[in-house]
Amino acid sequence: MSKLAYLGPEGTFSEEALRILAPEAERLSCPNVGAALEAVRRGVADAAVVPLENSLEGGIASTLDELVRGEPLLITAELLLPVRFSLLARPGTEIPHIKRLLTHPAAHTQCRGFIARELPDALVVASASTAAAAQEVALPGSPYDAAIGASIAGEHYGLLEIASNVGDRDDTVTRFVMVGRPAPLPAPTGADRTSTVAFLAEDHPGALLELLTEFSVRGVNLSRIESRPTGDGIGSYFFFFDFEGHVADARVGEAISGLHRVCADVRFLGSYPRADGIAPQIRRGTSDTEFAEAGEWLARVREGRL
Amino acid sequence: MSKLAYLGPEGTFSEEALRILAPEAERLSCPNVGAALEAVRRGVADAAVVPLENSLEGGIASTLDELVRGEPLLITAELLLPVRFSLLARPGTEIPHIKRLLTHPAAHTQCRGFIARELPDALVVASASTAAAAQEVALPGSPYDAAIGASIAGEHYGLLEIASNVGDRDDTVTRFVMVGRPAPLPAPTGADRTSTVAFLAEDHPGALLELLTEFSVRGVNLSRIESRPTGDGIGSYFFFFDFEGHVADARVGEAISGLHRVCADVRFLGSYPRADGIAPQIRRGTSDTEFAEAGEWLARVREGRL
Amino acid sequence: MSKLAYLGPEGTFSEEALRILAPEAERLSCPNVGAALEAVRRGVADAAVVPLENSLEGGIASTLDELVRGEPLLITAELLLPVRFSLLARPGTEIPHIKRLLTHPAAHTQCRGFIARELPDALVVASASTAAAAQEVALPGSPYDAAIGASIAGEHYGLLEIASNVGDRDDTVTRFVMVGRPAPLPAPTGADRTSTVAFLAEDHPGALLELLTEFSVRGVNLSRIESRPTGDGIGSYFFFFDFEGHVADARVGEAISGLHRVCADVRFLGSYPRADGIAPQIRRGTSDTEFAEAGEWLARVREGRL
Amino acid sequence: MSKLAYLGPEGTFSEEALRILAPEAERLSCPNVGAALEAVRRGVADAAVVPLENSLEGGIASTLDELVRGEPLLITAELLLPVRFSLLARPGTEIPHIKRLLTHPAAHTQCRGFIARELPDALVVASASTAAAAQEVALPGSPYDAAIGASIAGEHYGLLEIASNVGDRDDTVTRFVMVGRPAPLPAPTGADRTSTVAFLAEDHPGALLELLTEFSVRGVNLSRIESRPTGDGIGSYFFFFDFEGHVADARVGEAISGLHRVCADVRFLGSYPRADGIAPQIRRGTSDTEFAEAGEWLARVREGRL
Repeated sequence: MSKLAYLGPEGTFSEEALRILAPEAERLSCPNVGAALEAVRRGVADAAVVPLENSLEGGIASTLDELVRGEPLLITAELLLPVRFSLLARPGTEIPHIKRLLTHPAAHTQCRGFIARELPDALVVASASTAAAAQEVALPGSPYDAAIGASIAGEHYGLLEIASNVGDRDDTVTRFVMVGRPAPLPAPTGADRTSTVAFLAEDHPGALLELLTEFSVRGVNLSRIESRPTGDGIGSYFFFFDFEGHVADARVGEAISGLHRVCADVRFLGSYPRADGIAPQIRRGTSDTEFAEAGEWLARVREGRL
Repeated sequence: MSKLAYLGPEGTFSEEALRILAPEAERLSCPNVGAALEAVRRGVADAAVVPLENSLEGGIASTLDELVRGEPLLITAELLLPVRFSLLARPGTEIPHIKRLLTHPAAHTQCRGFIARELPDALVVASASTAAAAQEVALPGSPYDAAIGASIAGEHYGLLEIASNVGDRDDTVTRFVMVGRPAPLPAPTGADRTSTVAFLAEDHPGALLELLTEFSVRGVNLSRIESRPTGDGIGSYFFFFDFEGHVADARVGEAISGLHRVCADVRFLGSYPRADGIAPQIRRGTSDTEFAEAGEWLARVREGRL
Repeated sequence: MSKLAYLGPEGTFSEEALRILAPEAERLSCPNVGAALEAVRRGVADAAVVPLENSLEGGIASTLDELVRGEPLLITAELLLPVRFSLLARPGTEIPHIKRLLTHPAAHTQCRGFIARELPDALVVASASTAAAAQEVALPGSPYDAAIGASIAGEHYGLLEIASNVGDRDDTVTRFVMVGRPAPLPAPTGADRTSTVAFLAEDHPGALLELLTEFSVRGVNLSRIESRPTGDGIGSYFFFFDFEGHVADARVGEAISGLHRVCADVRFLGSYPRADGIAPQIRRGTSDTEFAEAGEWLARVREGRL
Repeated sequence: MSKLAYLGPEGTFSEEALRILAPEAERLSCPNVGAALEAVRRGVADAAVVPLENSLEGGIASTLDELVRGEPLLITAELLLPVRFSLLARPGTEIPHIKRLLTHPAAHTQCRGFIARELPDALVVASASTAAAAQEVALPGSPYDAAIGASIAGEHYGLLEIASNVGDRDDTVTRFVMVGRPAPLPAPTGADRTSTVAFLAEDHPGALLELLTEFSVRGVNLSRIESRPTGDGIGSYFFFFDFEGHVADARVGEAISGLHRVCADVRFLGSYPRADGIAPQIRRGTSDTEFAEAGEWLARVREGRL
C-alpha cells in the first residue's frame, strides 16, 4: 500500500483531493507544501497531493517554488475539486448562537455573502487553514462557536454541518496534482496536459513571445502561464507553463525541445491525463501522422530523391 | 490627513509597506484584501496598500481577483519590500526556552534552515498571519513561546526581537501597491510601470501570442504575466500583465489600444513609477519622437504629399 | 486632354492597357519603363501605364526599380489584363506558309503548345517585344512570315489575325498600373489596394518577420511581397509590398506608420481601387469603428476616467 | 564530358556564367529558359545554367515558373556574375560614327548615363537580347553601328570592344544557378543556401507570417522571398524562398519539415554552396550540437528520467 503526503492538518481540501485520487492510500499530513514534497524526495512518502492553482490554502506559489527547486519531481495526475464550504459547529449549536466564527481569510472572502446575511453580528477570526479552524472549534472550551471549512473537516473533528454550500459562488474549483519521484510517465490518453518551467536565457522585449512561439508554431495550446521572479535579481524570470498534449506527442516533443534549446534551463514537470478529459483541437499539420510524413519527406529530400 | 486601509492585523508586512509609502496616513486594518479594497470603493478609506506579488500572506491571488471584479480602482504607487523575518518573544525568553513556535506556514517554509539549526526540537504551529502569531504570543498565558514575523509586529505587541534575519534567503521581496479610486494618473517619470488585465475574446492556439504581439510590435517589454481562469467555465482565461512604460507614452498607448480592440475586455489598473527606478530600454522606432514623426509622415501620405 | 506614356512601341499589351484605363488620352510611346516614368516626372506626360506583375514584356523588375529610385510617383489605378496572343501575318498568309516566326521569348514560352502543334517546322526568332515583332513582320520585304503578339499590334501595323488565343493557358493576366505625380489620393472605395516599398534598417534572422508583424497585428492582409537587393552590398534588401485596404483606413495607416518607425525608409507608392473589386475581410478588432472606439477608450484611460 | 544548356544565343551573360561554372562543359544554346530546363528533364543536357535573380535578360520570372512546374529539378550551384556592359562595334568604327545603336531594353535602361553623355544623338533600337544585338551588328550590311552587350558577345561575333564598363552602376550582379536532375545533394560547406517553393494551404491575414515563423523560430534567415500568383484564381499564391544553410543542417531540416506540414505543397529546389562564401550567423540554440543535445534531453524526458 502506498503512502501519500498532503497539506495538513487532517480535514483540508488537500486531504479531500487525496482521498479521491487515491482512496486506498495511507495518508501523511504535512505542515506545508514544502514538507510534503520533501517527504517524497526523501522516500518517506511515495507521492504527494498538493494544490497547484486557485487554492484557498495559499499553496500555489509555494507549490511552484518547491517544484522548481531541489530534486526533480514528476506530476502524474491532476484533480479539479469543486470547493464547497460548510458551516461546522459542535452538536447543539444553532445559527443564531454563533457569535465567534473561525476560518481561513480566503474562505472568509469567499463566504462574505452568507456571513453578511446569516451571521451579521458574528466576529470572524482568522485561522491558518480551514481544517485548523475546525480542529480548534472542536476543542472542549473553545472560545469559537463555529468554523467554515470542508465537510470532511467536520467528520474528522466531530462537528456537525449546520449549513452547506455557504460560498458565494458555486463554480470555484481548486486544481490539485499528485507528485512523485521520476519514473516512467503515464501513458498518453489523447486528453493530456503537460507542465514545464522555463528559465529565460536573457530578458529583452519579445523574449516571452519567442518562448510562446515555440509552442504556437507546433500548434500547442497553452492552458496556463505565470511568470515568477527567480529571486536572483531584478529582470530575471522563469515561466510556468501548462499546455495541451503529452510529451510523447510529436508536436509537444518538438515544442519543448525548442524551448530547451533557446532557454537557459527547462524543467519538465510531467505529462498526465487532464481531469476534465477534454481532447485538444489538433491544428492542420500538427498531428503525429503529419509529423511522421514530414519526417519521411525530409529524409528523401536530404538524399536528393525529389 | 488621508486614511489608508491595509491587510491586517497590526504588525503585518502590509502595515510596514504602508508606513513606508505613506508615513503620515491614518491606518485602517482590514481582515482581508477584499475588505481593504471595499473600504476604498465605499470611500471609507482614501486608498489601500495591498500585496500584489510574492506575498507571504497569500494575498496575491485575492488581490488580483478583487482588482478585476467590482468598481474599477487605480494603482498609483508600488513598493518592493525586502522580507526580513525576526524571531519575536516575550521579554526574558531565550532561544533554548522555545518549545512552541507560532507562525504563518509560508514563513515556516522560508525559515526552515534557521528552525532546523536553532530550534530543532520546537513544535511549529501555523497561524493565520505572522502578525496574528505575534499578537497571540504576546497574550498573557499564551501556550506559545515565540513567533516569527516582521520586526514591526514585535513593536506593536511588546515582543523582543531575539533573532533577526532568520529567513533562509536574504533576497526575498514582496511587491505592494497603493490602490485608490479613479483619478488623474501619476505623471510619467521615465521609469514607470503599467498594469492591465485582458480578457480573451476566444480561446485558440496562439491566442495569447496574439495578445503579446500587441506589446512586442510596439517595443513594450512585459515584466509580469499570469493567466487566471475567469471562473465562467473551462477554457476561459484572463491575463494579468505588468509592463514597462506609462500609458501616456505613445508606444504603450498604442499597445493597449490594440489590446482593447482584440480582447473581449481590458481593465486598466494603473501607470505608476517603478519602485526600482529602472528606465526601459526603448527599442529603435518606438520612442515618442519616432511615433510623432511617423504620425506626421502618415498625415502627409494621406494627402498625397510624397 | 491628358497625355499618357506607355511602354512602346505601338501595339504592346501596355498600349492595350492604357486604352482601357484612359480611352480618351493622348498616347506617348516610350522605349522602356524608365523612360515612361521619366516622362511623367518631367511633366512631359501626365501619367504612365506600366506593367507591374507577371508581365510578358519583362517590365516588372525595371518598373519596381524605377518606382523606388528618383522622385516619388503615385499609383492611382490598376488593371488586370488577360493576356491573349494572336498569330499575326500579312494579308494572304496562311498557316502552312509560315516558315519564320518572330516573337518575344516570353511569348514563345507561353505559346509552345500551339507552335509545336501548328507550326512544328517554323524557325522561331526572338524580338525585343511582341509589338516590335509585328512591326517588323509588317515591313515590306520582311524575312519573317508571322508574329505572335496582341491583336492590337495587328491593327496597328496592318496585319491580319490568322489565329487567336494561341497561348497554352487562358488564365494568364498581366497587372498594369497608372502612375502619376504626387497628388490627392483616389478616394477609398472599400475594395482598395496599397503599395509600398520598405528598406530594412538592418538585416538579421527574423527581420522580415518583424515587418510582416506590423501588418498582421493590425489585420492587414498582404497580396504581394518581393524582396530585392538594394545593390548597395550583400545582405541589404528592400521589400515591395502590396496589401489590402486604403491608407485612409485606420488599420492600414497604423500599419504603415509602424513600418515607417522600424524601417530605414518607407516609400509609399499609392492606394487605389482594386481591379478585381474584392473587399477585404476585416478581422475582429480592426475596423475603423473599432479603432475609433479604442482611441476614445485610451483618451479616457489617460485621464484616469476608468 | 558533360553537356550544359543555357539561355542563348551565344554571347549572353548566361553563356558567360556557364563558362565560369563549368569551363570544360559542352554548351547547348537554347531559345528560352523553359527550353533549357526541358533539355535537362529529357536528358538532352546534363544540367542548365539559368538566371534566377536580377537578370537583364528577363529570365527570372520564367526561371521560377519553369522550376515550379513539371518534373522536379535540383539547383546544385550558384554564381554571382557582375554585369559589365561593353560597347561593341565592327572594326574601324569609332564612337562619333555611331548613329544607330542596338541593345536589349534593360541594357538601355542601365546605360542611360553613358548613352546620354557619349552618344546623345544615336537612335537606340531594342533587340531581344544583348547577344542578339551583337549578332545583328556583326552581319555585313547591318543597319546598326554598334551594340551594347557582354564582352563575350563581341568575341563570339567578331566585334571590337570600343568602350567597356559603360553601365551607370558598377555593382550590378546577376545571380545564375546550375540546375540538374535529382541526385545526391552537394555536401554542406558551412556557407550554403537552400531554395524552396511553398504553396499556401489557404489564404488569410497572417498566412505568410505563419510560414516565415517556421523559419525564424529555428533561427533560419531568409535571403530572398517572392510571392507569385499560382494562376489558379485570385488569392492563391506560392512563395519562393531562399534561405541560409543546408537541408542537412538540423535547423533547416526542421524548418522545411514544418513548412511541409502546414503548406498545401512544398517543392525543394536545392541546397548548394553560397557564391559569396558567407557563413550564416547561427543564433543561440540553433546549432546542430544544440539540436542533438535537445533531442537527447527529450528522449530522457519521455522515459521519465529527469
